[in-house]
Amino acid sequence: MKFKRIKTPGIAHNAYILATKGIGIIIDPRRDLDEYFDYAKKNAINISYILQTHRQEDFVLGSKALKELTGSLIVAGENPVSVNADIQMKDGDLLEIEELIIQALHTPGHTPESVSYAVSFKDNPENVWAVFTGDALFIGETGRTDLPDKNKTAENAAILYDSIHEKILPLGDHVLLYPAHGAGSVCGGNIADYDESTIGFERTYNKVFTLSKDEFVVHKLHERIPRPPYFKLIEKLNFEGGAAAPINWDSIPLLLSKEFEANAKSGLIIDTRLPEAFAGGHIPGSYSIWLEGLPVFGGWVAEENKPLYLILERNEDMKKALQHLARIGIDNVKGILAGGFEAWRDAALPIDMFDTISPQELQESTTEISVLDVREITEFEDEGHIHNAEHAYVGYLPDHISDVIRELPTDTKLAVTCSVGHRASLATSMLRQNGFKNLFNLLGGMTAWNTLKLPLEKGKSEKTPLDQISIEKDFPHQ
Amino acid sequence: MKFKRIKTPGIAHNAYILATKGIGIIIDPRRDLDEYFDYAKKNAINISYILQTHRQEDFVLGSKALKELTGSLIVAGENPVSVNADIQMKDGDLLEIEELIIQALHTPGHTPESVSYAVSFKDNPENVWAVFTGDALFIGETGRTDLPDKNKTAENAAILYDSIHEKILPLGDHVLLYPAHGAGSVCGGNIADYDESTIGFERTYNKVFTLSKDEFVVHKLHERIPRPPYFKLIEKLNFEGGAAAPINWDSIPLLLSKEFEANAKSGLIIDTRLPEAFAGGHIPGSYSIWLEGLPVFGGWVAEENKPLYLILERNEDMKKALQHLARIGIDNVKGILAGGFEAWRDAALPIDMFDTISPQELQESTTEISVLDVREITEFEDEGHIHNAEHAYVGYLPDHISDVIRELPTDTKLAVTCSVGHRASLATSMLRQNGFKNLFNLLGGMTAWNTLKLPLEKGKSEKTPLDQISIEKDFPHQ
Amino acid sequence: MKFKRIKTPGIAHNAYILATKGIGIIIDPRRDLDEYFDYAKKNAINISYILQTHRQEDFVLGSKALKELTGSLIVAGENPVSVNADIQMKDGDLLEIEELIIQALHTPGHTPESVSYAVSFKDNPENVWAVFTGDALFIGETGRTDLPDKNKTAENAAILYDSIHEKILPLGDHVLLYPAHGAGSVCGGNIADYDESTIGFERTYNKVFTLSKDEFVVHKLHERIPRPPYFKLIEKLNFEGGAAAPINWDSIPLLLSKEFEANAKSGLIIDTRLPEAFAGGHIPGSYSIWLEGLPVFGGWVAEENKPLYLILERNEDMKKALQHLARIGIDNVKGILAGGFEAWRDAALPIDMFDTISPQELQESTTEISVLDVREITEFEDEGHIHNAEHAYVGYLPDHISDVIRELPTDTKLAVTCSVGHRASLATSMLRQNGFKNLFNLLGGMTAWNTLKLPLEKGKSEKTPLDQISIEKDFPHQ
Amino acid sequence: MKFKRIKTPGIAHNAYILATKGIGIIIDPRRDLDEYFDYAKKNAINISYILQTHRQEDFVLGSKALKELTGSLIVAGENPVSVNADIQMKDGDLLEIEELIIQALHTPGHTPESVSYAVSFKDNPENVWAVFTGDALFIGETGRTDLPDKNKTAENAAILYDSIHEKILPLGDHVLLYPAHGAGSVCGGNIADYDESTIGFERTYNKVFTLSKDEFVVHKLHERIPRPPYFKLIEKLNFEGGAAAPINWDSIPLLLSKEFEANAKSGLIIDTRLPEAFAGGHIPGSYSIWLEGLPVFGGWVAEENKPLYLILERNEDMKKALQHLARIGIDNVKGILAGGFEAWRDAALPIDMFDTISPQELQESTTEISVLDVREITEFEDEGHIHNAEHAYVGYLPDHISDVIRELPTDTKLAVTCSVGHRASLATSMLRQNGFKNLFNLLGGMTAWNTLKLPLEKGKSEKTPLDQISIEKDFPHQ
Repeated sequence: MKFKRIKTPGIAHNAYILATKGIGIIIDPRRDLDEYFDYAKKNAINISYILQTHRQEDFVLGSKALKELTGSLIVAGENPVSVNADIQMKDGDLLEIEELIIQALHTPGHTPESVSYAVSFKDNPENVWAVFTGDALFIGETGRTDLPDKNKTAENAAILYDSIHEKILPLGDHVLLYPAHGAGSVCGGNIADYDESTIGFERTYNKVFTLSKDEFVVHKLHERIPRPPYFKLIEKLNFEGGAAAPINWDSIPLLLSKEFEANAKSGLIIDTRLPEAFAGGHIPGSYSIWLEGLPVFGGWVAEENKPLYLILERNEDMKKALQHLARIGIDNVKGILAGGFEAWRDAALPIDMFDTISPQELQESTTEISVLDVREITEFEDEGHIHNAEHAYVGYLPDHISDVIRELPTDTKLAVTCSVGHRASLATSMLRQNGFKNLFNLLGGMTAWNTLKLPLEKGKSEKTPLDQISIEKDFPHQ
Repeated sequence: MKFKRIKTPGIAHNAYILATKGIGIIIDPRRDLDEYFDYAKKNAINISYILQTHRQEDFVLGSKALKELTGSLIVAGENPVSVNADIQMKDGDLLEIEELIIQALHTPGHTPESVSYAVSFKDNPENVWAVFTGDALFIGETGRTDLPDKNKTAENAAILYDSIHEKILPLGDHVLLYPAHGAGSVCGGNIADYDESTIGFERTYNKVFTLSKDEFVVHKLHERIPRPPYFKLIEKLNFEGGAAAPINWDSIPLLLSKEFEANAKSGLIIDTRLPEAFAGGHIPGSYSIWLEGLPVFGGWVAEENKPLYLILERNEDMKKALQHLARIGIDNVKGILAGGFEAWRDAALPIDMFDTISPQELQESTTEISVLDVREITEFEDEGHIHNAEHAYVGYLPDHISDVIRELPTDTKLAVTCSVGHRASLATSMLRQNGFKNLFNLLGGMTAWNTLKLPLEKGKSEKTPLDQISIEKDFPHQ
Repeated sequence: MKFKRIKTPGIAHNAYILATKGIGIIIDPRRDLDEYFDYAKKNAINISYILQTHRQEDFVLGSKALKELTGSLIVAGENPVSVNADIQMKDGDLLEIEELIIQALHTPGHTPESVSYAVSFKDNPENVWAVFTGDALFIGETGRTDLPDKNKTAENAAILYDSIHEKILPLGDHVLLYPAHGAGSVCGGNIADYDESTIGFERTYNKVFTLSKDEFVVHKLHERIPRPPYFKLIEKLNFEGGAAAPINWDSIPLLLSKEFEANAKSGLIIDTRLPEAFAGGHIPGSYSIWLEGLPVFGGWVAEENKPLYLILERNEDMKKALQHLARIGIDNVKGILAGGFEAWRDAALPIDMFDTISPQELQESTTEISVLDVREITEFEDEGHIHNAEHAYVGYLPDHISDVIRELPTDTKLAVTCSVGHRASLATSMLRQNGFKNLFNLLGGMTAWNTLKLPLEKGKSEKTPLDQISIEKDFPHQ
Repeated sequence: MKFKRIKTPGIAHNAYILATKGIGIIIDPRRDLDEYFDYAKKNAINISYILQTHRQEDFVLGSKALKELTGSLIVAGENPVSVNADIQMKDGDLLEIEELIIQALHTPGHTPESVSYAVSFKDNPENVWAVFTGDALFIGETGRTDLPDKNKTAENAAILYDSIHEKILPLGDHVLLYPAHGAGSVCGGNIADYDESTIGFERTYNKVFTLSKDEFVVHKLHERIPRPPYFKLIEKLNFEGGAAAPINWDSIPLLLSKEFEANAKSGLIIDTRLPEAFAGGHIPGSYSIWLEGLPVFGGWVAEENKPLYLILERNEDMKKALQHLARIGIDNVKGILAGGFEAWRDAALPIDMFDTISPQELQESTTEISVLDVREITEFEDEGHIHNAEHAYVGYLPDHISDVIRELPTDTKLAVTCSVGHRASLATSMLRQNGFKNLFNLLGGMTAWNTLKLPLEKGKSEKTPLDQISIEKDFPHQ
């Protein structure tokens, strides 16, 4: 048997390939398939089965595309993950493929259709080797339970608790655990930063095992993870089995500076350089999202009907940037700035810049500098924040900009912070677009602040978070 | 200005990219565009113009596809290369792009629409820097003149002679020469094995300059280069501007041995390993075409309505093999043998093998071994052949197999030879399919034979070449 | 924490990198370090600790070289793995590195100094996450116990049994198992073909757990794995901490055919092409070892004072071939045949070839063909062999060639077989060097033979294996 | 024949490989040889001859190293390029290698030992195909003539003029021109930005042909190209045939932030990020040299006895950065900041930053901002500068810092400019180290300034350049 985890950075996704006697089984493939085909090619594998654990909300599935290219059969649980499953397995059903036995285990809670797959060998059928749990059980964490219906978060938490205790735990301590996501995923709050674990090891520290069911429900209610707007689109696509990656990654036009300027007027510009470089100089009106942040924050910024234009640190990043966006369903990139910001700068086109500030400087500043913290609310409350800092989650800023301006007039000297400075750079770029003049990105963010042991406040802020001041309108923010 | 030659091995094709101030000009692009986009990306170039020298017969153009992806303008001469030129240049017309001046020079003879492009700089407009001659003038050679109409070979040779003497020669000795093909192309008989030359250097040894016009016509009449059957298809495609490369190179299914066997029954199998490996063991009925030989000999073997199945030396060769075939318009590869011949062999499926023989052994053999020489007729006559060798060009073998069998019954001990053994391996595989039992591939072929200074005969054979015995039917062989 | 297994094909070796807060810990590094540095570079890791499980016999360690380049500390058990350990851990000792706790567990049996390392996290110290077992416990297998002293195989098997039951088993079912070797290693008889397991899963099928201690000892006595001659050299090198990879992989001269011929006269030639290609044509006197077989069989063929010359399927294989050899301490490659066998063949230099035969042909042959089976004795006996087949392990052939000739005169029609044909090709090349004239490589070997369900005999042969006929001399064959 | 130009970016160097029948000839190899070996490997070439045109001052030769690895013969002119030539060719001497004829032409002027090599084919010996001119004749330029002795610039210019007119010009218009450097080299003032030319094309515009000898001498006297301090070291090394590349590119330690901080105290830090990123945040005291600028400006900053520490935009740039430095003889890089500036920033270590300013902002500024122009003196005078700008060449800044401070006190608001902002960033980092507080990097530099058609002054400044105020001491600045 051959076995390979193929990770997708940015969305922190794990697909898995199992192969026995040249027959390949892939679990939860993303839509850009090259890396899977590459592994298949190197190992002489004929991909023949696609196992789906659940619908996925944070990336577009490649099931349909892969089926069309290879003739593979799509396998799902009893409740439809998507419309096009070839094999639907009831809870407990077995699928035998050469020396492997795959058992479906219905494990709802994260989503109602979630299914896990337990794999054993025919010559040792009583003992499960590994279980593929999708978003039910992660390393050190469980899947969020607020997605199907925010108001049923507790109810779904209880269902998830039961799924894991009744279906996964009995497999035994020795069983290898292979979930669909790792650390950094928006599908779970606090996934461990390593990828290897077992049910028995989880039993010693994962809250789903160390808490009682009631405690676990309370814990899940406290999670309050932002729900990116692109989740809706992806769920719809994935119900159809996902979508083929539409893009020839290399053929997006490289636009010369003047042409880029002209075209981008009718679209959005995302600048993928790091915060220091963005602060040192950038195109007025552009959004700052570092390259690896695209598959999460690109989805907060992109609009379905507006073409996207990208600034890359290096032209060679083109494929990576396009993949990052395509994986969350954003395919409307229409141009890349040829030669990057360097070309723009040398072409004497308009440039904007703002300041950076170090934690020490902020702390010792004699002039008053307000602080806006754009992390998630739980980071702000549980990990602590700067005294008097205002809070608004970066993703919710655009919808609440008038609330922000009411509290912090656009001529306020304003230091923006997050954990290290990436999200703060995005927030700063949004504020700049809305007229803020005296912005500082706090370099190193709260990570550096903490390292320096500067004063910290924990718990709820006395102030109402800015992103909750006005009444939520069409999009159900938290 | 940036300048880059991008070679396509197998078809020995040269495309060229010129770029000035980020504006890219590409000359004669092939249909698989990745390498061009890659260069554009690395150099921050926006591809904007596609210059076509002529229709091309030996590879599918990428003009149309490139235009669609980049919005480039297609430039051609006065006579339509294809239906979709955006700019048609009369003889002598100038096109100015930033600091470059491009002049069109009508240079018919290889084909009637052939045009060359002379490039100079605006600050030195009287002096041409380089000329892109398409298939008119190669390094050390000229384009073949038998393609538009075999019966007008002489007439077209005279036209070509005039084109070069009247349009190219006056540009001056100092002008750099950039043709569309290098050594190994089927578009010219004997192109030099280096790529760099000037008009002045050609003047010292290229036959179009060292021969008189009459001598040149006689020389061209003697060329007798085979005309592969796929030329017709390509000309038709290229009249439409070529075709986008249709293939996701990595997604052709890797078929396990038994599935490969079942599927391949309704198609053709091409084995791309080297002659020794093919002799040592191969799938019965498969064709032997070494990897780099695919873009020429694949076109002699492939049939439009039969799916192709490939045996690769290494799975990693998949992309290269598919590109080689796609470049000559063959897109119907339906499967690759997963794990290659090794997997087939270990699966105990049927195997065929034949012998190899060294020149020394053949010369010293005490039993009678007939010799079949499958090189081109001019190689056979001009470079010399083994005494009593029969001749039939490898590409014409299938159409003349009954003539071959009449002369050489299928139980003849038969050594097959070409220049080193590649084409002989293909011929041997064809003979095997037609019942020949006692075949040897002469390892090293006539190259090794000559190195050993074994006896050689030059000039016409006393025997009629086997591929000319029966009346030519639908396909106009030489 | 970051965690990465880095496999070395050919020797089926696993090194592991753990990293916490940028501090890297590497377990059992090989001497060519590029891949480790590459991972460190991509992940911003400063390699700081080198954990050694034991001395290793089958590959040269990189500990010393890595220490010199990075200033890392070498960690070993109480008994000296090598002379240069910076930290020697007693059984049960703890080493804390940021959030990790590493506990040394003395697990002798494979070798007396063998130590395993159990890793846990400071915030969950009671529960071990994973154990690195070196060659004590593999997936589905245990380390061979005949290496320190063949006569103490049983005694060491008992020690190993106790080590695993007393030190590894108590860690708990949930613990991840990371051994130093995977399937194909010469350090264990029958390692599973997957890499992921846990102590609990092993408990359900690994013989060290399913057999009683006495049964286990008998089982280990039956293993009879060949002991390659290069083990001695490697043990000596590794006692010094191994050796830096001495080779600039790309600078070994590519010798033109005639120069290769002249130079190779005073050395040994290894041809790394596949068996079919070798049969179809090869340099007289060369050894046939397929590329991936070099790190095992290269060690049976190479001689310390004779330069090696290589024939590669492709020039691009140079680095891989040199690495394969260097990893087992063979650094005296002095030339590569430029252009491979193709160049030699076209240069008309002497060529040898032999026949191949398929199982069906062998079975149906009307002329008598003897069979020589060159697999390991346990493959021959336990998996079955062809009726009347002679047996001699490929590695022992050269030392027993006179015994072979006595039994099978050099004009015998002789089919050579192994599992698929690779080792048979090496054996055939050895026999050829000793005057055998009528050799066949049985394509597909016993694998194909079995697939076709041709007649098979199991158990001891009536005949004494050829490699045990004469009295063993200086080298203690089994 | 095979022919390949291998460019070295940064130093704008061309090496060339010629190969005939597998015998390789390399011209002017650099010390890091991988790319040459790679080409040799792909093309089955045995490198056998090393042709040296002259000693080279701007990069370390690889002749000696290559000779030792391959046994190649070193070829040079009559006057010793280095101590270890195997073949010394008198002016006009011929060297025949298979079908090639190589003629040595003594072409002094750039340096006294300079030799060019004219290549022709045996079957057309009267006509030279190409000439390799080293630093005598470039595309559109000639080699600088001030190197051997600044006071003999005119004399050497006259010698160079004669060399080219007497030795190169007579070869004929048709001859291909292959010099040792392209655009961007410090060995010539204004080399064309394309690489392909002929003697005949040069004749139409290269000043060595369009000027009279006297005019040419005046022209060369005007060049005033800076002479980097590392030239001396390189000349010494190259007299010994250069030096092997000493570095395993991947094994330089990646130092974690605190360790980097501690170690770098006794050395120099070079930050290779782009100017905007450096302005946005950097390590106090570090030098700003963009990656591609290392092989020129690294040599102005590095000190022989001080270890170097690097900040890279990406860890993956390590090899490129080390190669850039090694090529000019700087081998003492002792550490790379693991994780780059991001890691430093997040570790809350000290950070410095300064402002950027756009040309428009500078022009419209209401507060007074002084301007320091750090381009070469000819750029400043001939291309024009901002009114009242002070001038000091970036390379000479450290030696003249007291002059600068005298003229521009350290609290001056000071915008630093060059052509686009790279050299200005280096100058700014130098000024910062010397106490300047109010610095701006003028983004886009004079390129953007000119594009905006902002006011420009040409010719000599009224002020004495700052780098010429104090008396030149030990190092003979211009």
